[in-house]
Amino acid sequence: MNNPTVFALPSRAYICEVAPRDGFQAINDQWIPTEDKVSIIRSLAETGVTTIEITSFVHPKAIPQLKDATEVVRSCNDLKNIKFRALVPNVKGAERAIDAGIKKIKLMLSATDSHSISNANCITEEAQNGFYPIIELAQKKGIEVGGSISVAFGCPFEGKVPQERINQIVYKYESMGVKEISLADSTGAANPKQVYEMLGHLRNTFPDILFTLHLHNTRGLAIANAVSALQQGIVHFDSSIAGLGGCPYLPGATGNVATEDLVYAFYEMGVETGMDLSKVIQTAKDVKQKLGCRSESYMLKAGPSSLLHTKVTSQQKVEK
Amino acid sequence: MNNPTVFALPSRAYICEVAPRDGFQAINDQWIPTEDKVSIIRSLAETGVTTIEITSFVHPKAIPQLKDATEVVRSCNDLKNIKFRALVPNVKGAERAIDAGIKKIKLMLSATDSHSISNANCITEEAQNGFYPIIELAQKKGIEVGGSISVAFGCPFEGKVPQERINQIVYKYESMGVKEISLADSTGAANPKQVYEMLGHLRNTFPDILFTLHLHNTRGLAIANAVSALQQGIVHFDSSIAGLGGCPYLPGATGNVATEDLVYAFYEMGVETGMDLSKVIQTAKDVKQKLGCRSESYMLKAGPSSLLHTKVTSQQKVEK
Repeated sequence: MNNPTVFALPSRAYICEVAPRDGFQAINDQWIPTEDKVSIIRSLAETGVTTIEITSFVHPKAIPQLKDATEVVRSCNDLKNIKFRALVPNVKGAERAIDAGIKKIKLMLSATDSHSISNANCITEEAQNGFYPIIELAQKKGIEVGGSISVAFGCPFEGKVPQERINQIVYKYESMGVKEISLADSTGAANPKQVYEMLGHLRNTFPDILFTLHLHNTRGLAIANAVSALQQGIVHFDSSIAGLGGCPYLPGATGNVATEDLVYAFYEMGVETGMDLSKVIQTAKDVKQKLGCRSESYMLKAGPSSLLHTKVTSQQKVEK
Repeated sequence: MNNPTVFALPSRAYICEVAPRDGFQAINDQWIPTEDKVSIIRSLAETGVTTIEITSFVHPKAIPQLKDATEVVRSCNDLKNIKFRALVPNVKGAERAIDAGIKKIKLMLSATDSHSISNANCITEEAQNGFYPIIELAQKKGIEVGGSISVAFGCPFEGKVPQERINQIVYKYESMGVKEISLADSTGAANPKQVYEMLGHLRNTFPDILFTLHLHNTRGLAIANAVSALQQGIVHFDSSIAGLGGCPYLPGATGNVATEDLVYAFYEMGVETGMDLSKVIQTAKDVKQKLGCRSESYMLKAGPSSLLHTKVTSQQKVEK
């Protein structure tokens, strides 16, 4: 029998840009003026991305960088083609988010009790129970709710997370009325086989839930994980322009997968993102320069391979 | 119907360490003393790797760093558990390699005429014709011959390489008696879909050829490409400790995929390499320090995820 020669992938994938939340919150050595935040969000909106995680309505003392959440959202509400999502940790945050004009909120808990205690000062079940009043409020106001699970593939304290543990959390989210759940590989501990198999089990067990993926490239596997997720039929991914971000509470948690690297990979494989790769790379350069931050994305270092051979054609070279 | 939940991979893969050839040749701002080269090769031999591309018998003026090829090989000939492979560009090089004690030689040509002219000053067909006397000599002396194809997936001058072009080169290699062929993504232009599909076609068309893969991580896709090659049943991979190397003649051709990153990825997915990950990472650290070179490997920056949670157990954390 012949070997298979088709690498089957979905034709369309959807990126949610998370730099304005996950990236900015990790920058704690400088204040990014509100107008700079807004200007970056506006340039991100021009890359063709359809969803932006715009900020987090946490307590200003917890993450001072995001204390201007309301102003940032209000300054971007005129961008009608972009869906904005905001992270909210509690009812107070949800009220602020809704008041600012947010139509979609994201809830976040940890897959393991150890990480939950470290991050939210309570075990996972307590954190999830705390979501009831937020969801009730959102439902009353007609606000969409997404759930997320941090360290879903591996925890820096407990290691690999069993399938059964994730199932329990998803089951409870579903019973609470949450229909979209993001699995976050917050420390880059996932591998392609694990991603494919865990998502396969989840999709079989919870056919009505939309699963999305939030990947970090800490150990160089983010793109490989995204590809195996695509093979499993997952088409929603978070990424961060210029690879900004990481979790401030996690040891060794370097940046989110860079938007430009993910869009390049998808582009090369013919998976349409609706985004303009050149604009994405230019925006990454601009954001890096504006924030004066280090960036480790491949596109900023090497650029897309397609740019090389447009400079010197074969014929020109041979004639040389 | 349920989604598939098994990510099928081979249980065993084989790494060929290429730093002593591909890595050392790229270091042209310092002379690495012969005894340091030998010492690095000996420490690589202790990682559990079974094959090492030990040097290149090119003209000393072309790559001065490798002018001690004969001494390096002779100083390592006592390592009986390692298979040494050397690159040879011509009959003279093959004679020197065989005289030094090499039992396996590797031939290298470019997939495109543009790259071949840039690299070898002749078109691909001429380069391949030049291999006849080398292969004849090797056959007479009982020396194994491997062929390779540089820029097999994408050329910096011509872009994507058509399947038919690769087929022609492989067909000719096979007719010359070469049974093992390495496809080199010399500028990191390959993507997982392309790798899977090209290798599928090649394996169907040339069932008697052993195909191996040489990946660069220029655009962050090396590990994803390795994973899709594994899915296609390819189990032989080149890699370079600490990601040393790259092609000195190619624009934007940064390092080979780092051995420690590839071994980590395989280890995490349960693909046995026979190599000791801790020793590989320690060797990468030592080599980086000895050569004083930059390295961009993930394992040197972040370490394996499994090391994190052995430090703090869940119970200790909860009791805190």
